[in-house]
Amino acid sequence: MADVHVLVEPELRDAVGLGDTEFAAVEAVYPLISAGRASMPPIMRIDVPEHRGEIDVKSAYLPGYAGIAIKVSAGFFDNPKRGLPSLGGLMVLLDAETGVPRAALFDNGYLTDLRTALAGAVAAAHLARPEASSVGVLGAGVQARLQLRALALVRPISHARVWARRADRAAALVDELSATVDITLEPAPSPASAAAAADILVTTTPATDPLVDVDMLHPGLHVTAVGSDAEHKQELAARTVAAADRFVCDHLEQSLRLGELRAAADRGFDADRAVTLGAVIDGNAAGRAGPDDITICDLTGTGAQDTAIASLAVRRCVDAGAGTRVAT
Amino acid sequence: MADVHVLVEPELRDAVGLGDTEFAAVEAVYPLISAGRASMPPIMRIDVPEHRGEIDVKSAYLPGYAGIAIKVSAGFFDNPKRGLPSLGGLMVLLDAETGVPRAALFDNGYLTDLRTALAGAVAAAHLARPEASSVGVLGAGVQARLQLRALALVRPISHARVWARRADRAAALVDELSATVDITLEPAPSPASAAAAADILVTTTPATDPLVDVDMLHPGLHVTAVGSDAEHKQELAARTVAAADRFVCDHLEQSLRLGELRAAADRGFDADRAVTLGAVIDGNAAGRAGPDDITICDLTGTGAQDTAIASLAVRRCVDAGAGTRVAT
Repeated sequence: MADVHVLVEPELRDAVGLGDTEFAAVEAVYPLISAGRASMPPIMRIDVPEHRGEIDVKSAYLPGYAGIAIKVSAGFFDNPKRGLPSLGGLMVLLDAETGVPRAALFDNGYLTDLRTALAGAVAAAHLARPEASSVGVLGAGVQARLQLRALALVRPISHARVWARRADRAAALVDELSATVDITLEPAPSPASAAAAADILVTTTPATDPLVDVDMLHPGLHVTAVGSDAEHKQELAARTVAAADRFVCDHLEQSLRLGELRAAADRGFDADRAVTLGAVIDGNAAGRAGPDDITICDLTGTGAQDTAIASLAVRRCVDAGAGTRVAT
Repeated sequence: MADVHVLVEPELRDAVGLGDTEFAAVEAVYPLISAGRASMPPIMRIDVPEHRGEIDVKSAYLPGYAGIAIKVSAGFFDNPKRGLPSLGGLMVLLDAETGVPRAALFDNGYLTDLRTALAGAVAAAHLARPEASSVGVLGAGVQARLQLRALALVRPISHARVWARRADRAAALVDELSATVDITLEPAPSPASAAAAADILVTTTPATDPLVDVDMLHPGLHVTAVGSDAEHKQELAARTVAAADRFVCDHLEQSLRLGELRAAADRGFDADRAVTLGAVIDGNAAGRAGPDDITICDLTGTGAQDTAIASLAVRRCVDAGAGTRVAT
């Protein structure tokens, strides 16, 4: 019928990264979500209890986009015993006009990592103070690294403090990034210490008990909560959500079900006070009203971002002649 | 990390077909579904209104199976104007122990067609009279052809009558199959005519108004309803469901939402009277109690079948050295 492009992680890493075009591609999807123009079903989840595994499937059709991504994320938590990473995944891209498969992207989760980091930059671009230069990071995994680098796309980041439950991992992150980015990094002994001097606090942990409480909020702070994407996860104490001047999220229903809105709403926070990132970008909802506002953005991750980044990656790979073409 | 096998339709057609092993593979999943042992989420659906498209995603983890299929079905109803088939799709197979992608199966929907036909044979094997030899078929598409051929695996089929809304398509099916199978075929002028002399009636249409009414039921008949897989579809009048001695379905919740149970339950049929195909296979629910019973089986299609057929297809392709290996 046609050729399908089979693309693997190194090819996809060459094609897309933390660049301005990638930022713009991710930014563009939020107004579509907020306006109800994305055709985006609830996340599909397959549990694999025997192997401590869980598989999430996300997808979205975005009007005007040439492709529709179907993204499979796998988390198998016994994998490290086998010398394999816990997290992986792949995407497929269908032609949006015909449904014909165009590409299979064996990215091992790279594109998800990338679009998640760019989403953090989008949130900061629209919610953090323009002169924000100091970042606090909770967590020391792939996303901690990428969020910090992505923030530098949109704000003049010069300092960062990193806290992780395992201090050795925070120290390793500081050593690693100090050698590659123009940011002064240091480990922080506690979440509160990481937040204290921060203009932007980014939480990237799988925490199930909140790490950020209301006493860590200070005037002018922007918080982006990246970690919570499941019913049992929570990084922000419910009252921090209520205490912020503005609570923003990528997707209201998901934030209420899987994100930081869940616990907050359970404790009486009026979810109608939450606004979407797309509405803020579009100017249909207020974001930061002044330099002393405290803003929070909760990111649960959307299939719309997957469609955006996969579309860009495939277009670039095709243009570059990268990948393996298989006649279907 | 590993190699992924990229398989295309001709390779998959060579690997699996209407054989006894394939039949057994599909049959084996129903008891797992009925016992609640399949980890099978609701079907994910992405609507693409601008292009009259709809994408369904199905999946299931089955304990003891080496792979987990994620199946994407695409129906884009403007495709014929472009010279493309309306229906297509692909599957990916993940390693059930690690979540690592093992294969991408660009089957253009072939494996779905195959496992659906085999499900019809499974239903007949457990519900039709042993001596059933005469088949009525409604519809004249791919599934009409495959259901008829699959039934011959399990019953001594000698005669078939085929009705379709377009008589020319029924005639074409009769001509085509007469040349290739050892069954005496003739077109039928009406659904009632197709059903009249049938031991087994198979409905394979996208009907939204019922084609089979209660006056078409006769002692000893078994009906397999394959077509309805969406909220607006219905092949059997609600009262036919109530009139049968036994109503069986592949998946209760799906039949209630997408299949023939929906309209029947709306008209007062007690859904607790429905039993699952897996329970019948396992002997945990009664199927046909005698030669004069009228039985109905509603098939909506399950991710468990996809995991079963994809697992078998990939195993055979790997053993045969078929496909393209791509290092991921």
